[in-house]
Amino acid sequence: MLKLFYAPNTCALASHIALEEAGADYETVRLSFKTEDQRKPEYLKINPKGRVPALVTDRGIITETPAILVYIAQTYPAARLAPIDDPFALAKVQAFNSYLCSTVHVAHAHRMRGTRWTDDPAAIESMKKKVPQSVGECFALIEREIFAGPWVMGGDYTVCDAYLFTLSQWLGADGVDINKTPKIAEHFRRMSERPAVRKTVADETRELQSAA
Amino acid sequence: MLKLFYAPNTCALASHIALEEAGADYETVRLSFKTEDQRKPEYLKINPKGRVPALVTDRGIITETPAILVYIAQTYPAARLAPIDDPFALAKVQAFNSYLCSTVHVAHAHRMRGTRWTDDPAAIESMKKKVPQSVGECFALIEREIFAGPWVMGGDYTVCDAYLFTLSQWLGADGVDINKTPKIAEHFRRMSERPAVRKTVADETRELQSAA
Repeated sequence: MLKLFYAPNTCALASHIALEEAGADYETVRLSFKTEDQRKPEYLKINPKGRVPALVTDRGIITETPAILVYIAQTYPAARLAPIDDPFALAKVQAFNSYLCSTVHVAHAHRMRGTRWTDDPAAIESMKKKVPQSVGECFALIEREIFAGPWVMGGDYTVCDAYLFTLSQWLGADGVDINKTPKIAEHFRRMSERPAVRKTVADETRELQSAA
Repeated sequence: MLKLFYAPNTCALASHIALEEAGADYETVRLSFKTEDQRKPEYLKINPKGRVPALVTDRGIITETPAILVYIAQTYPAARLAPIDDPFALAKVQAFNSYLCSTVHVAHAHRMRGTRWTDDPAAIESMKKKVPQSVGECFALIEREIFAGPWVMGGDYTVCDAYLFTLSQWLGADGVDINKTPKIAEHFRRMSERPAVRKTVADETRELQSAA
């Protein structure tokens, strides 16, 4: 059985949704960032980077959201979560996921994780101030240049949708008004209604509440 | 014919090397970051993100290094640049590429591209100071936890090697001594001798000199 290590309110939700959409046989293990579970020796054996998600398979452990998403799509082909038989179409999926992990998530991370890049408290505060602009510009670009509609890639739902939904959840806290990107706002509402999304979000929320 | 848009001394070198290793029929178009070619309207039609690399194919344009690398591996299977028929092994390749784009390259970018994340000149200076530490820690982790040897993934050369070589080139300017990671230092020397690497590096250098 697959085992997903996640923490609430992280990008691991995208992999969690994809597992649910795939109909995979999986279980989840919740880490708490408040108690820094991700830096404890037992978790560093799972993922030496001290981050989530990590997916334990019968062959070994996979980390990094874009890698996990395509792995799920390839190993559950009946769920049709990515155009796995078309290298060009798959490259478009990959380009989107790569933009989210390397640019959009990184822009967001300057609000909470500034210590990765500076030790100066004043610099960390100054980084926070730019997050609404930098994250907002990323979402405006997605809306204008990439989002095909009704799903990210067009007519077919893919893992990109789970990933975009995950980062869209953070917009309010990032100081970005989702309604400035109406197609993404509508996508967010539509995603929220999908059974797989409702279930995974409820599972993560319930585990968070029971831990509080 | 494929067409790769690149700029010298950027991560586009990884895609350039992969095209050469694949034996692809391709041409290159050099952008100069000094004259901000990447932000000019004609290039923004190619890549609205204003970044390199961008690969023009007969079906459309692919951006983002991890997407381009796997696309090249899939469309030139004879070159065996990735384990494209094994989803788990491919996921390991993807996880490595994703770590490079979302964490290692990002750490490096705080030396030259701080304005992405703050407008405060003092904060930008403070970010630069942490680059030797943050990039150094990434490379130490790769050496200790990921690099299988003799190539990144083990016995088989993959696109990961082209990507690691590309980022290894920046270590000196980032204030990181490559010899603190002896396996990566040896990998860098070995990569430098590969015909595809010698050719692409020479091509990019020659075009840079002729433009100077």
